[in-house]
Amino acid sequence: MNQSGNSLFFRTEIFKTLKGVDEALSLLESSIKDIILDSIEIDVKDSLHHFPVEDILAQQDVPNFDRSAVDGYAVISNDVIGSSPTNPIILKVIQKIYADTNFDELKPINHGEASIVYTGAPLPPNADAVVMFEDTKFDGIMVQVFRPVSLYQNVSRKGEDFTKGSVVVEKGSIIRPWHLAALLSTGLDRIRVFRRIRIGVLSTGSELTEKYNGSGIVNTTKPLLLSLINEEFCEAKDFGTVPDDRGAIKEKILHALPQVDMLLTTGGTSVGATDLVSDAISSINGSKMIFHGVRMRPGRPTGMALVNGKPVFMLSGYPVASFTGFEVFVKRAINLIRSSRQSDYPKVRARLSRRLAKPVGVKAFVRVKVFKVGGEYVAEPLRLTGSGLLSTLTRGNALLVIDENVEGYDEGDVVDVQLIGGLV
Amino acid sequence: MNQSGNSLFFRTEIFKTLKGVDEALSLLESSIKDIILDSIEIDVKDSLHHFPVEDILAQQDVPNFDRSAVDGYAVISNDVIGSSPTNPIILKVIQKIYADTNFDELKPINHGEASIVYTGAPLPPNADAVVMFEDTKFDGIMVQVFRPVSLYQNVSRKGEDFTKGSVVVEKGSIIRPWHLAALLSTGLDRIRVFRRIRIGVLSTGSELTEKYNGSGIVNTTKPLLLSLINEEFCEAKDFGTVPDDRGAIKEKILHALPQVDMLLTTGGTSVGATDLVSDAISSINGSKMIFHGVRMRPGRPTGMALVNGKPVFMLSGYPVASFTGFEVFVKRAINLIRSSRQSDYPKVRARLSRRLAKPVGVKAFVRVKVFKVGGEYVAEPLRLTGSGLLSTLTRGNALLVIDENVEGYDEGDVVDVQLIGGLV
Repeated sequence: MNQSGNSLFFRTEIFKTLKGVDEALSLLESSIKDIILDSIEIDVKDSLHHFPVEDILAQQDVPNFDRSAVDGYAVISNDVIGSSPTNPIILKVIQKIYADTNFDELKPINHGEASIVYTGAPLPPNADAVVMFEDTKFDGIMVQVFRPVSLYQNVSRKGEDFTKGSVVVEKGSIIRPWHLAALLSTGLDRIRVFRRIRIGVLSTGSELTEKYNGSGIVNTTKPLLLSLINEEFCEAKDFGTVPDDRGAIKEKILHALPQVDMLLTTGGTSVGATDLVSDAISSINGSKMIFHGVRMRPGRPTGMALVNGKPVFMLSGYPVASFTGFEVFVKRAINLIRSSRQSDYPKVRARLSRRLAKPVGVKAFVRVKVFKVGGEYVAEPLRLTGSGLLSTLTRGNALLVIDENVEGYDEGDVVDVQLIGGLV
Repeated sequence: MNQSGNSLFFRTEIFKTLKGVDEALSLLESSIKDIILDSIEIDVKDSLHHFPVEDILAQQDVPNFDRSAVDGYAVISNDVIGSSPTNPIILKVIQKIYADTNFDELKPINHGEASIVYTGAPLPPNADAVVMFEDTKFDGIMVQVFRPVSLYQNVSRKGEDFTKGSVVVEKGSIIRPWHLAALLSTGLDRIRVFRRIRIGVLSTGSELTEKYNGSGIVNTTKPLLLSLINEEFCEAKDFGTVPDDRGAIKEKILHALPQVDMLLTTGGTSVGATDLVSDAISSINGSKMIFHGVRMRPGRPTGMALVNGKPVFMLSGYPVASFTGFEVFVKRAINLIRSSRQSDYPKVRARLSRRLAKPVGVKAFVRVKVFKVGGEYVAEPLRLTGSGLLSTLTRGNALLVIDENVEGYDEGDVVDVQLIGGLV
């Protein structure tokens, strides 16, 4: 898990084998483009935060009839032109219509007639506007109208919200509360969505303990990744921790893979030094290394392989480096497999509180703390390195991503930062 | 559920009884300030998206010892000053230390001595730096050091990530993946969090159906609210739909309340006209109306009462108006009860694509569609009204909140909009 600088010679050699982030991403994309995830049919009521397999279309116009938007009298608008309190127009009331009255039971109105309608009630044939109760007086048979209404006034038009066949939720969207409600309104009970992607996490490292016990190192990277998987609306599966032994690692990978769509390993990856995980993977028949070692910081040892057609991401054993590997690569794979648009963190522009230098050729993910001073945001860089320091994530609330070709920023430069933790 | 304009006289009368949004919020806050939510003890591993009842402090320094950040030789840095490949300094290797070696078993090193240390291994007493393997040569007994190290080079210092007693997660925060990992690293297995707030939803309206069946109106407001409750990490409970009958509504409220911390009703609230829910609530002994009718659009009929000490929010039957009531009032109550900071939607500045006028004295929540044109965001207002139109939420992706005292905006004005649905 050695991430510090090695001797200059060694570093130069290794550097040549590293991929740029974009190159690694494009290798990732072509390697998994043929993966097909099963779809399942579920109740719309249970569809929150699922991902549709195709555009979902409205089954009906919503509203499915012209409906009254108020309590009042459905009329022919031409009949009540010029009506006023001193010169009311008098209409005959021929029926009472409720929101749940069946359209087939409605009598058409003729000139000189009106129907009582309650909010949501379908308008009877020929009616084209609704006069509100407040602007009328009813004697039990006839109604006096004191106010004219324009064409379709107080009417929710058929198809005004959704027209039959129009797209309610696009493929690629995550279903949010309003989508779910809209789907129900258009007559859908069941929809087809991708099943949850199952992602396993397998840690390697003889020194790791699950809980603090005074000696050893608490494995924080695994629970971090399991939680990140949950936040992406995938199913996380914990495959425990395996010692630094190539055979044991290989065996555990082969045990885990059939149970998941994707596997994340932590530790045992360091580009050039002990490289147990990539050795274990390479020893599996039919495995294929897609990339291994990326010009990013933290997260340089990040790698990806295909084993029996499934993506295996080799992430750092250091929590912050594994976080970066997850953000950049695992999220991309998740979104490709379920055809979803990536939900990037929201960005704000912030002024850097101090100078920040980084090596050219390396993409950096700097944890920063953003806060408001007067009317503007200030970003205080926490650490460029420190891939083991979770406090750079708990004390920070944002990421500053610095591109390969940028040497850094001066104090006072205004940069875009991604809010990972909300502004306090 | 009448929200359209009434006669001028009627509107003026009603208007006087409406509260401004801020006034209503402050009445809400004082009415529920004494509510105490139970806490529960849970495994840190299960604590994602929970809310701590107090600041959670580190139980240990992290790292809990000075630990090696690399594989190499722990040395006394003064011993290797001036070492080089041509002039190596030779030290005696007295022990081998692993990350899980117990600190009590370590022999202190003296001048002229070194210990093999693997990444994460505690440094033995007196050692103050680590030379990497790459910069040494070992003959089985003695090691040649080719390179000097500065004080604490390649060492993760005790307490560098967290010091014992420092705050790992503040009260008011939501536990995110990195908090969970950090808590484990500091020696915590179990923590105290607020139990999930239980929120019931009860719809009123004889015209409502659960599913589309050709007649009636599909109740989309209830599933919308149940989903919004889930997105706030609360437990949602569905109490169904009750007809427009005061006695039935009262009975159902009294049935639901003991099972929840908070109840949301939908429909039957219209300020001045048929007002079945507030009538039903007022008929309950010891109930107290906190506010009813708010100068906001949509959502004017929104109200709040306390019944047996529990908040009951009377929300509109229209989905978009209920959404606004939830955003403004229910979220505030949720966050007060569990002492959490409100997670507002991220904001971007966007240029309005067209003029937007609204009545002074009313706070407006306009659904807008934000998209990028060249380097800037453009916001296209969808509807100022249309509280029944879910499409203004599914087609829009942002909210523009316009304050009471603002008459509107001109085309081209730059405004802050809140992203509710992510930028496509």
